[in-house]
Amino acid sequence: MKKSRLEAFSDGVMAILITIMVLDFKVPSEASLAALCSLAPVFLSYVLSYIYLGIYWNNHHHLMQVVHKVNGPVLWANLHLLFWLSLIPFVTAWMGNHHFEGIPVAVYGAILLFSGTAYYILTRCLLAIHQADSPLAKAVGRDGKGIISLLVYSVAILLANFHSWIACSLYVMVACMWLIPDTRIEHVLMDDPTGKLE
Amino acid sequence: MKKSRLEAFSDGVMAILITIMVLDFKVPSEASLAALCSLAPVFLSYVLSYIYLGIYWNNHHHLMQVVHKVNGPVLWANLHLLFWLSLIPFVTAWMGNHHFEGIPVAVYGAILLFSGTAYYILTRCLLAIHQADSPLAKAVGRDGKGIISLLVYSVAILLANFHSWIACSLYVMVACMWLIPDTRIEHVLMDDPTGKLE
Amino acid sequence: MKKSRLEAFSDGVMAILITIMVLDFKVPSEASLAALCSLAPVFLSYVLSYIYLGIYWNNHHHLMQVVHKVNGPVLWANLHLLFWLSLIPFVTAWMGNHHFEGIPVAVYGAILLFSGTAYYILTRCLLAIHQADSPLAKAVGRDGKGIISLLVYSVAILLANFHSWIACSLYVMVACMWLIPDTRIEHVLMDDPTGKLE
Amino acid sequence: MKKSRLEAFSDGVMAILITIMVLDFKVPSEASLAALCSLAPVFLSYVLSYIYLGIYWNNHHHLMQVVHKVNGPVLWANLHLLFWLSLIPFVTAWMGNHHFEGIPVAVYGAILLFSGTAYYILTRCLLAIHQADSPLAKAVGRDGKGIISLLVYSVAILLANFHSWIACSLYVMVACMWLIPDTRIEHVLMDDPTGKLE
Repeated sequence: MKKSRLEAFSDGVMAILITIMVLDFKVPSEASLAALCSLAPVFLSYVLSYIYLGIYWNNHHHLMQVVHKVNGPVLWANLHLLFWLSLIPFVTAWMGNHHFEGIPVAVYGAILLFSGTAYYILTRCLLAIHQADSPLAKAVGRDGKGIISLLVYSVAILLANFHSWIACSLYVMVACMWLIPDTRIEHVLMDDPTGKLE
Repeated sequence: MKKSRLEAFSDGVMAILITIMVLDFKVPSEASLAALCSLAPVFLSYVLSYIYLGIYWNNHHHLMQVVHKVNGPVLWANLHLLFWLSLIPFVTAWMGNHHFEGIPVAVYGAILLFSGTAYYILTRCLLAIHQADSPLAKAVGRDGKGIISLLVYSVAILLANFHSWIACSLYVMVACMWLIPDTRIEHVLMDDPTGKLE
Repeated sequence: MKKSRLEAFSDGVMAILITIMVLDFKVPSEASLAALCSLAPVFLSYVLSYIYLGIYWNNHHHLMQVVHKVNGPVLWANLHLLFWLSLIPFVTAWMGNHHFEGIPVAVYGAILLFSGTAYYILTRCLLAIHQADSPLAKAVGRDGKGIISLLVYSVAILLANFHSWIACSLYVMVACMWLIPDTRIEHVLMDDPTGKLE
Repeated sequence: MKKSRLEAFSDGVMAILITIMVLDFKVPSEASLAALCSLAPVFLSYVLSYIYLGIYWNNHHHLMQVVHKVNGPVLWANLHLLFWLSLIPFVTAWMGNHHFEGIPVAVYGAILLFSGTAYYILTRCLLAIHQADSPLAKAVGRDGKGIISLLVYSVAILLANFHSWIACSLYVMVACMWLIPDTRIEHVLMDDPTGKLE
């Protein structure tokens, strides 16, 4: 099977998700700075989700570079990931419109948790069809960062109803952790001077 | 003619369809779990349509792998398929907003029936320009699964107005039947050790 | 310059246009067949525009196959074409919502006229950078079909305000004329047994 | 790393942005020319933004042709550019709906300024991983046009609140300046008769 069409489809979905979030910015009925400033929570919520979707696209891009083949379960694991990501625009708008209140913040965290879990499942499906000494296996490794993220999301969800800003800070923290480029895969690629992986 | 642009266009349309469905989730005006729960029928409707579009993308992906050439009629048969798929977001929202009432459920089934028929026509158009012993012909075969689906949709449409939940269960059943990967094409691909098809 | 990215971008825009038109189907507030039937004019308008966008995608696809190179003016001529096509969802919804009244039907025709002109300009820009005996030149030729379409659109615009259904029939007629595959380009491709063009 | 997926993702986002702007044309409730004419400011605003997005796509296309490799910072610099571009539909609608009043015009200029800065940062990130005598370095050079644009945007933002039409004229002026094709990169490509860059 070809991985190129999987990449193209995923890119398409992620590009659309990142873009339709902007439709939730309702054009203010007044032409004043005050009207613009009242959109600040929606904007902050948008920035956070934009960064998360950027991270997922980036990691997906890196991951697919060390993938040699895909099969049926991988296609569905990928669709499963895209399903949870597709709900991000909804929770982003809900969280922004309600000024980061407890329940929407917790639901936002739940979507992040499900997305993170889906990404984890995707890597496992890929590992199952690659050899133990493949570049993919070396690159993914034990995936500590992924598991830590899932734990932090869980803590944030529990805290959200009481201290929603702590939960939000935790989401920002996880995003910062991922903004540091995934050097594992880059290292593996550098160790492959033949460039075959590309 | 090139099949790559046909694939790219179909991927684009399907990626957009799968994504704009989420625009039908109206952001609740309250930040409560009760408000979220009231979206449950819309969510269930979304999940079902997401899976159906995923199945179509998946089968389209498999089908195109054994296709060697495309022509004018194939381009239009493909656009015809995308036309019916493009109506899925509309019927999904209608069915979800009206808690799976009879008429919307029947109309949903009609769109599935037209989509299934359009897919069948697409495979016939492709078979017409491939030889009888081509990998495509072997892979598509008599297409029993496709014909059974069309029959089940028809039954569901007739039942929808009286027992709409039976109709919905039939839609779920067909989806489950298709989630099992289309092993026919994978078998044909495996029998082709030269990898020429890719 | 590469034509592949021009194709990818055009495909993306056309795929999105064909899909967002469906957002103009407002979900009926009732779950009845009568509510669905009241959408009939919007649906007919959608079908017509879907076919027109399909024709543009199809012809663009054929045209690009015989193109060997693109340059700056071609990129802008292509963006100019996409600009007019991007207004089709707007006029489609306006025409459908107002049951094919005179003014919206005339404006619809104007957008078709501008799109057709933009396509004509695109072919001229392409011819300017290809040789007189290139496959492109042979395939495009004098482009009688394109010029006839422009004339029919002009007549329809003039008639729309008095007999809007005659104007609509003319739009349908032009669409039918184009649904017949553009055999000119297919002939040129067939005369090129080396397959270099692909 | 592969630049092809970066291009595909950027194309996707820009294609969607250019298209969803059209959703801000609210279908008039009347079928009259007067209702259509009342949309003129929204239309003018749309045309300006369409041209700007076209310029960005065009320049991005040219830039990527002389790029040999991308890395993590480039991916993020690109996402940063797309972030500011993603806000263009919002400011376009705000500016159009409020007939080019001071505040929306200034905010529109601010988004152009941030987008221009983001594009500048992207070129610097690319230069950092290419050699000083690479085609990219020759093609980008000192980027006078980019810096002039940023200065003009800044002036326009300051003027917008007092003379919003002067600010708008400055935006149009910058767009005209960029519509002249970026001959620098074309020259470098022409000096490379081996065609390796493509």
